[in-house]
Amino acid sequence: MHFASDNSGPVHPAIVEALVRVNEGHAMPYGADAATADAVARIRDLFEAPEAAVHLVATGTAANALLLATMCAPWQTIFCADIAHVAMDECGAPEFFTGGAKLSLVPTEHGLMTPDALETRIAAAAQGVVHSVQRGPVTITSVTECGTVYSPDALRDLTGVAQAHGCAVHLDGARLANAAAALGCSPADMTWKAGVDAVSFGGTKNGLMGAEAAIIFDPALAWQFELRRKRGGHLFSKHRYLGAQMAAYLTDDLWLTMAGSANRAAARLAQAIADLPDARLLHPCQANMVFAEWPRAAHRRALAAGAAYYPAGSLDGPDDEPVAARMVCDWSASDADTDRFVALLRG
Amino acid sequence: MHFASDNSGPVHPAIVEALVRVNEGHAMPYGADAATADAVARIRDLFEAPEAAVHLVATGTAANALLLATMCAPWQTIFCADIAHVAMDECGAPEFFTGGAKLSLVPTEHGLMTPDALETRIAAAAQGVVHSVQRGPVTITSVTECGTVYSPDALRDLTGVAQAHGCAVHLDGARLANAAAALGCSPADMTWKAGVDAVSFGGTKNGLMGAEAAIIFDPALAWQFELRRKRGGHLFSKHRYLGAQMAAYLTDDLWLTMAGSANRAAARLAQAIADLPDARLLHPCQANMVFAEWPRAAHRRALAAGAAYYPAGSLDGPDDEPVAARMVCDWSASDADTDRFVALLRG
Amino acid sequence: MHFASDNSGPVHPAIVEALVRVNEGHAMPYGADAATADAVARIRDLFEAPEAAVHLVATGTAANALLLATMCAPWQTIFCADIAHVAMDECGAPEFFTGGAKLSLVPTEHGLMTPDALETRIAAAAQGVVHSVQRGPVTITSVTECGTVYSPDALRDLTGVAQAHGCAVHLDGARLANAAAALGCSPADMTWKAGVDAVSFGGTKNGLMGAEAAIIFDPALAWQFELRRKRGGHLFSKHRYLGAQMAAYLTDDLWLTMAGSANRAAARLAQAIADLPDARLLHPCQANMVFAEWPRAAHRRALAAGAAYYPAGSLDGPDDEPVAARMVCDWSASDADTDRFVALLRG
Amino acid sequence: MHFASDNSGPVHPAIVEALVRVNEGHAMPYGADAATADAVARIRDLFEAPEAAVHLVATGTAANALLLATMCAPWQTIFCADIAHVAMDECGAPEFFTGGAKLSLVPTEHGLMTPDALETRIAAAAQGVVHSVQRGPVTITSVTECGTVYSPDALRDLTGVAQAHGCAVHLDGARLANAAAALGCSPADMTWKAGVDAVSFGGTKNGLMGAEAAIIFDPALAWQFELRRKRGGHLFSKHRYLGAQMAAYLTDDLWLTMAGSANRAAARLAQAIADLPDARLLHPCQANMVFAEWPRAAHRRALAAGAAYYPAGSLDGPDDEPVAARMVCDWSASDADTDRFVALLRG
Repeated sequence: MHFASDNSGPVHPAIVEALVRVNEGHAMPYGADAATADAVARIRDLFEAPEAAVHLVATGTAANALLLATMCAPWQTIFCADIAHVAMDECGAPEFFTGGAKLSLVPTEHGLMTPDALETRIAAAAQGVVHSVQRGPVTITSVTECGTVYSPDALRDLTGVAQAHGCAVHLDGARLANAAAALGCSPADMTWKAGVDAVSFGGTKNGLMGAEAAIIFDPALAWQFELRRKRGGHLFSKHRYLGAQMAAYLTDDLWLTMAGSANRAAARLAQAIADLPDARLLHPCQANMVFAEWPRAAHRRALAAGAAYYPAGSLDGPDDEPVAARMVCDWSASDADTDRFVALLRG
Repeated sequence: MHFASDNSGPVHPAIVEALVRVNEGHAMPYGADAATADAVARIRDLFEAPEAAVHLVATGTAANALLLATMCAPWQTIFCADIAHVAMDECGAPEFFTGGAKLSLVPTEHGLMTPDALETRIAAAAQGVVHSVQRGPVTITSVTECGTVYSPDALRDLTGVAQAHGCAVHLDGARLANAAAALGCSPADMTWKAGVDAVSFGGTKNGLMGAEAAIIFDPALAWQFELRRKRGGHLFSKHRYLGAQMAAYLTDDLWLTMAGSANRAAARLAQAIADLPDARLLHPCQANMVFAEWPRAAHRRALAAGAAYYPAGSLDGPDDEPVAARMVCDWSASDADTDRFVALLRG
Repeated sequence: MHFASDNSGPVHPAIVEALVRVNEGHAMPYGADAATADAVARIRDLFEAPEAAVHLVATGTAANALLLATMCAPWQTIFCADIAHVAMDECGAPEFFTGGAKLSLVPTEHGLMTPDALETRIAAAAQGVVHSVQRGPVTITSVTECGTVYSPDALRDLTGVAQAHGCAVHLDGARLANAAAALGCSPADMTWKAGVDAVSFGGTKNGLMGAEAAIIFDPALAWQFELRRKRGGHLFSKHRYLGAQMAAYLTDDLWLTMAGSANRAAARLAQAIADLPDARLLHPCQANMVFAEWPRAAHRRALAAGAAYYPAGSLDGPDDEPVAARMVCDWSASDADTDRFVALLRG
Repeated sequence: MHFASDNSGPVHPAIVEALVRVNEGHAMPYGADAATADAVARIRDLFEAPEAAVHLVATGTAANALLLATMCAPWQTIFCADIAHVAMDECGAPEFFTGGAKLSLVPTEHGLMTPDALETRIAAAAQGVVHSVQRGPVTITSVTECGTVYSPDALRDLTGVAQAHGCAVHLDGARLANAAAALGCSPADMTWKAGVDAVSFGGTKNGLMGAEAAIIFDPALAWQFELRRKRGGHLFSKHRYLGAQMAAYLTDDLWLTMAGSANRAAARLAQAIADLPDARLLHPCQANMVFAEWPRAAHRRALAAGAAYYPAGSLDGPDDEPVAARMVCDWSASDADTDRFVALLRG
């Protein structure tokens, strides 16, 4: 009954096997190995972007911060959702890596920015006036922090706003696999074909040990990115283990299979919770996250029985008062766990 | 015949087994897991420092830069060897993480700073004058970049100089295991007992996949370090895999066993090269690195036959002119490889 | 008819005389001169803070950014009004000088933060959780960007909120003289006695050529500030000219006299505008700034006749539609100018 | 008898008059005033660079650091003389403004870099290898910190080395007026015609109150410079007083006249010292600085009698041991002072 995060799940056995397989003899360090070359080629294939600059790092924060720093001058502001991971959960990594850029928060509904809200926020940022920071890139998260997903059309509406203001677009795709599984879209459809210039393509939350791809569709930025990565301490010496993870992830659609499993588990959980008499969903469940609230007493029961997740409020208080919670399913989530968990909630 | 770097070697099977073992079910992310707790406890035991702040990161550059940033104000200068990894091979990571500190280079002999050279360099740095950057920490590397090792006494002489000037001391111990194996000293003897305040304790070059411990003996700096690590994108979500590597590394003295193997392989290689009629060692071989020179023709033969290492000069030129090279042995180096390599050099 | 800004006014003749007077022979540079010593002593007297660290710089942005950087770690967030100069008009100087801190915006009414709004914003900032930036200083502006003024009691209510959360307090007093003239309070009452830890005490907007005092009531921070000032390029070599300005400013209450003149001019202008049939004030006029709106046609008349001020909206549009404007009076504002301006507005 | 620095001298009366003259009524702030426009036009004329980006700041450190930051990526290294002001006397300002670039020190003779020494240093900096910082701009100081001057030919030799490596060139011309007076060369000959891309053109050390021009010959960098200047707190609101200083400086060759006076005073002082039986010059006196050594007893006499300058060694020790000193003459230096000073040295 572990719903705390998709990053608390195990590594998929096929990934472990790939790590064992690549662990033969010596290999040149710092990315000059065959597994990394294979991973890069597979990402370019998957994204239908044969020229893209593709680099691997081990954390999503590194991918986001390095990409944003490559796209944003220190005197610019990054436009992002008011609940974006880059704004709320990275301890100021974008500010650190950019050399002191600002983040301008765009209001969201169920985690989604609307084109109007983005337009309003960008228009409110002075441009061409020296007293103010200048307009920098827009970063969009999909799957959002509320578990919702932008369709390619919705993405294009947002990137159109950005482009009209000359702003480049970054996609925080820590859960892009889950979005792809939910939408049945290709990565290209959800990125460069929809106006995205750079992507953090996540693997860690979806069955890898720790590997993310930073993809820039304009290869001219590759060298700058590499220097920033090294300088940030994010260039791995034993790089083959990053490469092997990512290559295996993209073999036989494992990335999509795992994301699909996680999504289905979340859908099942969401439906079961929605069916509870005292519970209600707070956001539509479109990928692998469930946001819901139910009475405090049921939280106490579930947590006491060992369920792992984060309630949004205190466990002290009236029994029947609703308390919200976030639950995330990873590729390994089991129906049995879900059923046991929902049974506890039902009481 | 792979001597390019110890980071081109494979991960030790016991480490792989530990990764497989820890890959069971779910675990809390960001270091709140049992494997990380085990690793931290083992490091504190090994260093005889029950209160030390211990954090894991995946690269040596991250460990060094985060520790130095924790110890050094932006307006200070870091004193280091003129060939130090932090100065030459980290693309300015210390400058980036500190917010623009300087590095002041101390001349070395066979990679070693002498107390006099350090004293001279520190004394030359103005202190208390606003026009100049101020004196910051001293960082010492052992095993040095020339493959030599500081004895505890030699370390104490250096840290004594630092302390006399009020400078804290960092030890870049990317190959500290090799130094310990060479000296037969305990980690405590080579660190806090010798006046060291913080250590980058390496694992990646010595059989791990990617795990280093950043150790600060003053636990008051722990929280600052954690915030810097997160902000730098170096806090792993699936942290158990770092923890498991480090815990296994410190089980049954695996760290020391692997370092000893590497050192013995290097000693054997060094001796064989020294015995060649046209070759000579450039630095004493005290750990797992060999620096030597021999005629260009022999380089051509060895490299053509598939030997992997970095010659320091061009392969174009007179056959019998000596050209230098660095060779590094990792835990997996085999006598057969060495013999084959030396036979090629002999011609 | 110049109301664009108080920084477009001339330097007071007494200040020019002081500059001429100090321009005799040689003087030691970088602040080791008699005029600077005199200025520092006068500021300590004025603020009743004999130990305070007092440093002069030439711009308000420098004073604010250097003080905030001295008070705020890179991984913290600064709490400020949503229209604060530091947030809107300094092109990210606080982010640059702090090394990438965030600014958290507090909603305001007529430019004033309420204790509740500040409490809500601070409480919403996670503390003690590594994923989020930590709580840093609160910065308060008085006179606010809307021309309103905090009473000492109002200030104390705000600083009480800050202190309850362990946040230090900075006061952006670019127009502190105007606030003092408006309230009849001593600088001490409006600063440390009200819980303020550091102050940017402005002179440039109030008749100086370019001189601001950065005051820190805890002298232990003096040396860090000096190094930051130098490193920021803000330590003047010919420092006596900063010292002479500030010393003359604080002689015979010139600072207060000039601020009083500016405030009276603004009050007169505000009253005259309020008396116009089609105009209305947008904020109470409490110091030397007037915010009002009146029909577009009157804007066109005034600007065509040479009035200098910034309308907040376009001059294209219906004649009778109200358009807002900001007007600022400096020490040299004349009744004649005001009368002529208001006559133009009346039509 | 004040030889401590040219920045301890007074402001020239013509500059004071210009400040008084510009102090009439109101003027638009932040550089949108007539005096600034006049100054910019005069600089473009003087440098025969009608398109150049010209901006004024108040300190030499600001001019240097802002220009270098505009020319240098954070992951690059700046090549400079081992005694350069940017390296020794700016408390790390270049590192701060660039976001953590390095400085690579080039050995000098009498303060001058030779083309060979520069070539050697640049060639030693790895390029195109991700582990190392990359080659950034070269900065040259003339008048050097030893009082020597590069001829246009010598400059061209250095900039030729820089250009061959793709490095842009900055000239720290804090005393460029003195160099021009010494060489009889035009500013264009000493800058862009000799391969210089950007210049810090000093005024403060040469009779201004505090005004320097930052000149970039490629106007495409203007906007970036402006944003950096604002963000650095270096955009003056009452900008007309910077403009008026610089405009008056460039009227009727005042800049050259003052520099000529200072140079002649230094030449006279140097000759008189060289004529002393126990003294000797340490560097050729080519502009307005004198470096010499003479017996300690004579230092004691001069300093006791009120001479102001910085001896390089302690006053405690044997009477007849030579102790070095730096003396700088400003535009206001008088023959009488020099004679009195030399008489004291003679004893």
